[in-house]
Amino acid sequence: MDPYILYYWPTIQGRGEFVRLALEEAAIPYQDVARGRNGMAQMEAVLDAGREAFAAYAPPVLRAGELLIGQTTNILLFLGAQHGLAPRTQAGRLWCNQLQLTIADVVAEAHDSHHPISMNQYYEDQKKEAKARAADFRAERIPKYLGYFEGVLARNPGRGGFAVGSRLTYVDLSLFQLVEGLRYAFPATMARLEPQWPHLVAVRDTVAARPNIAAYLASKRRIAFNEDGIFRRYPELDK
Amino acid sequence: MDPYILYYWPTIQGRGEFVRLALEEAAIPYQDVARGRNGMAQMEAVLDAGREAFAAYAPPVLRAGELLIGQTTNILLFLGAQHGLAPRTQAGRLWCNQLQLTIADVVAEAHDSHHPISMNQYYEDQKKEAKARAADFRAERIPKYLGYFEGVLARNPGRGGFAVGSRLTYVDLSLFQLVEGLRYAFPATMARLEPQWPHLVAVRDTVAARPNIAAYLASKRRIAFNEDGIFRRYPELDK
Repeated sequence: MDPYILYYWPTIQGRGEFVRLALEEAAIPYQDVARGRNGMAQMEAVLDAGREAFAAYAPPVLRAGELLIGQTTNILLFLGAQHGLAPRTQAGRLWCNQLQLTIADVVAEAHDSHHPISMNQYYEDQKKEAKARAADFRAERIPKYLGYFEGVLARNPGRGGFAVGSRLTYVDLSLFQLVEGLRYAFPATMARLEPQWPHLVAVRDTVAARPNIAAYLASKRRIAFNEDGIFRRYPELDK
Repeated sequence: MDPYILYYWPTIQGRGEFVRLALEEAAIPYQDVARGRNGMAQMEAVLDAGREAFAAYAPPVLRAGELLIGQTTNILLFLGAQHGLAPRTQAGRLWCNQLQLTIADVVAEAHDSHHPISMNQYYEDQKKEAKARAADFRAERIPKYLGYFEGVLARNPGRGGFAVGSRLTYVDLSLFQLVEGLRYAFPATMARLEPQWPHLVAVRDTVAARPNIAAYLASKRRIAFNEDGIFRRYPELDK
């Protein structure tokens, strides 16, 4: 099998990181193409509707043999089914997809906490509005979403502390990334609130200790969080 | 088969409307439960994690036999596969899901055009910020998204003017709803821009003329657009 090809921005974790974590955990050979020579040109080409019949609106995009797949949750739906990162039952797959979509919602809101007016303008030009939106995100949205995921984990009767059933799924990988991202962006808020979510912290730790994930996190393939990504550390937005 | 049960806010189209359109087109028996007697209590119960093992974060939720399914795109993924509103191939289903997720993205941005700071505060308390965000949405986002969908429709080699293949899918129904919603919320903007998107306008017209959809739109089951939904007509946001 030819390696899968991931098309995503080469300098950020962003939404592509949810895909990278799944590829790494399942030990699927892949090429993170935009990080290589002429990589950006290849990423632009795959988004070019003049060349690709199924061009995506935006990255990440995954080429898997003859399939070209866009949208993060859609890529994970495919990887989950194909590579053992989701249950085999219809009910289990729909539940995974539902949880992943809810993660995508809070990730989009995390982005908008620093860009509430326009993604085409600089943070500095919408800083005042970002302070107001981030205050709401910290006070209302983080507790509501993370409290929801804590409940999902706590109620799952399966062993192992996972979100769905008794085996790791891509949802667990994404919950790890969500906690890591929020810790990076809102360290004071998360330090204060995290004791409310012991199951969420536990699944974060479980994922971090998986051999393939631990090796990935220690490698150069893991890009550091930075202020070009979705989760950004602007101290004024954390207080 | 027992009728499906849809749990969604009884006074708005909102995200539930994408599900209602699919149920109506496929002539699937369903109960729009929150619109009936004691309906809100039933909707609250289905979201109560103390009662439901697979409680959703938010409506819409669909009960289909033993399945309880949340998140709009996930419900459509299920309905598409089960009721002939999506292709049979894996590639076709992934492409439908990808397009629907992109529709969900622009719908979320349409919501934020009137609530850029907090969904827990009134529009009137974020009106100034809404003007700025709506200006960006009109100038940058609507053209980018609708131009993308226009290209998808134009490039599809299938007959009939649909988004995917040669048969109607839930994506076409959702494109109809997207155009209708944007026409309601931004009439001046849409009147000016729509000539750029002839394929999109054509698929909107095709969907509106489907017998089941036409009957639905003429019935009391179709709730009118209003200023509690996602698409809101605030004239100051359209200029």
